[in-house]
Amino acid sequence: MILDAGYVHGGDIYSRPIRLDFSANVNPFGAPAAVRAAVRQAAEGLSAYPDPYCGPLRGKIGALHGMDPSGVICGNGAAELIYQFAAALKPKKALLPVPSFADYESALVAAGCEPTFYPLQREEGYRLTEDVLQAIGPDTDLLMLCSPNNPTGRSVPRELLLALLGRCRQTGTWLFLDECFYELTDEDRAFSLAPQLQDGDRVFLLRAFTKAYGMAGLRLGYGLCKHRDLLLRMSRLTQPWNVSTPAQAAGLAALDCPDWPRKARALFREEKPFLYERLTALGLWVLPGDANFLFVPGAPGLYEKLLSRGVLIRDCANYRGLQPGDCRMAVRTRAENEELLKTMGEVLHG
Amino acid sequence: MILDAGYVHGGDIYSRPIRLDFSANVNPFGAPAAVRAAVRQAAEGLSAYPDPYCGPLRGKIGALHGMDPSGVICGNGAAELIYQFAAALKPKKALLPVPSFADYESALVAAGCEPTFYPLQREEGYRLTEDVLQAIGPDTDLLMLCSPNNPTGRSVPRELLLALLGRCRQTGTWLFLDECFYELTDEDRAFSLAPQLQDGDRVFLLRAFTKAYGMAGLRLGYGLCKHRDLLLRMSRLTQPWNVSTPAQAAGLAALDCPDWPRKARALFREEKPFLYERLTALGLWVLPGDANFLFVPGAPGLYEKLLSRGVLIRDCANYRGLQPGDCRMAVRTRAENEELLKTMGEVLHG
Repeated sequence: MILDAGYVHGGDIYSRPIRLDFSANVNPFGAPAAVRAAVRQAAEGLSAYPDPYCGPLRGKIGALHGMDPSGVICGNGAAELIYQFAAALKPKKALLPVPSFADYESALVAAGCEPTFYPLQREEGYRLTEDVLQAIGPDTDLLMLCSPNNPTGRSVPRELLLALLGRCRQTGTWLFLDECFYELTDEDRAFSLAPQLQDGDRVFLLRAFTKAYGMAGLRLGYGLCKHRDLLLRMSRLTQPWNVSTPAQAAGLAALDCPDWPRKARALFREEKPFLYERLTALGLWVLPGDANFLFVPGAPGLYEKLLSRGVLIRDCANYRGLQPGDCRMAVRTRAENEELLKTMGEVLHG
Repeated sequence: MILDAGYVHGGDIYSRPIRLDFSANVNPFGAPAAVRAAVRQAAEGLSAYPDPYCGPLRGKIGALHGMDPSGVICGNGAAELIYQFAAALKPKKALLPVPSFADYESALVAAGCEPTFYPLQREEGYRLTEDVLQAIGPDTDLLMLCSPNNPTGRSVPRELLLALLGRCRQTGTWLFLDECFYELTDEDRAFSLAPQLQDGDRVFLLRAFTKAYGMAGLRLGYGLCKHRDLLLRMSRLTQPWNVSTPAQAAGLAALDCPDWPRKARALFREEKPFLYERLTALGLWVLPGDANFLFVPGAPGLYEKLLSRGVLIRDCANYRGLQPGDCRMAVRTRAENEELLKTMGEVLHG
């Protein structure tokens, strides 16, 4: 919960009138019917405490990844796990490529760590390149990465991720990899480190139900990690009942709907090139991202102008390493995308 | 979430077959229809992120207590706020009367503090007495109290609470007062410090929807505090979206149902004396607690025997300061209480 004016994310449809939200990167189809039904059913059994072990849910997540449930930790949204991870690890030196999701830095600062930033280059389209390997030394306790990266949409190429894994194993560096957009990533670019995990690996993979299953309001994320001690430390940093009964029920239902993110990916295959071309035609610089959103650097005033028409995109000026006028927008359904483009045409060219 | 065998609470109806749960102290009527309806309705709007400010909910909670919303912090259950509070305060010397709710100690330990225990005396029926005032000095950073206390059911008398407030103001000691059972407390014993709060006071009052509105599975609690800096520090220790959309909607609905806990209190007025007398007649020592549960010290084997018949009470052996055989049981509806007594009669006397 936020108490000051410190909210730095998309999705704030509460503090002003919004008719179209392109600022949150969630599945444009919302939540599957089975998930909504699971929540309605959970509404009839609210008085019991949630399962503190998240037993059935962790079992099903483990089965999905071919992992023992002991390597699965569930959270009140993936975001909670970022803070728990940082607080459990308390790294001295953490390397943070930027721009990236703001809560990595917030979580590290909350854990008493001043991160070392690794600036991605604007002229390289914010790609992470092999140069990062040189920045990881035996004194690097942690590397925090997001792939595809938020807000740029760039995914780390498979070969580089494997090289990073090897380098981190060599130097004893923890690798925190946020794979929250995995299910909504173009299939030829989607790559997870999950099958690579070995016992004792200092690797934490972050996953979310939030985005792929359109349930950001419900909060459910999980981590995959084969370093038992780290998971135990994380679990001791908070209450036993952090994952609500409706969220656990919804997660179980979502895992029965693998076609749901697939259907969204099929939509993005059509809509991403459509949006890309139309935005480019409007004179904007658009990065061809690999996930369900597009990064548009250098469009000063666009955010404010759209907001005045009730259309919310993500103003990225507050991302470390970005500039005023940089913004991000989700890819949604054709009708919504056309409405965005129409409004954008009006505000940009009269 | 729990990863090891470290679960120390009631309400675990998941890891074994339970037909009657007397281990969790929730409203025996469950959640009001309006709360269930709010959750069902929220199921249709899961894809947006929750309001990070909990705006309307904090407004309504503030109005209930005659406080500005800036003094209200919401959490994913009251339990989350205990950990956030301890992590934000990082006290050096914390005084903890025991036995009490186990997560005060867990949260302090997670924050790097080894609490100083203040043992309540068995021969005094675990009452907190004026002696505690002498234990609070200028080097005491924090006193953590629960009233009525879990698991003993004892509330701190009004005069003593006011004296503690005065003493803490004198010594600069933080007073964390868990009032989570307030709405389910006998009306002649219910007393909240909320109206006493002054700007800058080092006082944090913990409240829950969990128990009074039968929504433990949904997770919603809040804190009242007029020390702005502490609340800001707490809010920076975790994600912006810790309170789910269904929980916020349910909280708003619950606040429209003040008769719901009142109805439960009317039940307890009948059922507590009934249970007390019948348990005493079975030869048990029962503490006449002020909230919706009874503490039964010194009943070795009772927990295990009831469990073998599918009836779960709270084994209190793992509370610091208690002994094997100490247990706690909720007060529920007449039919359930009679079933408990029947099973208890069978296991105790053949």
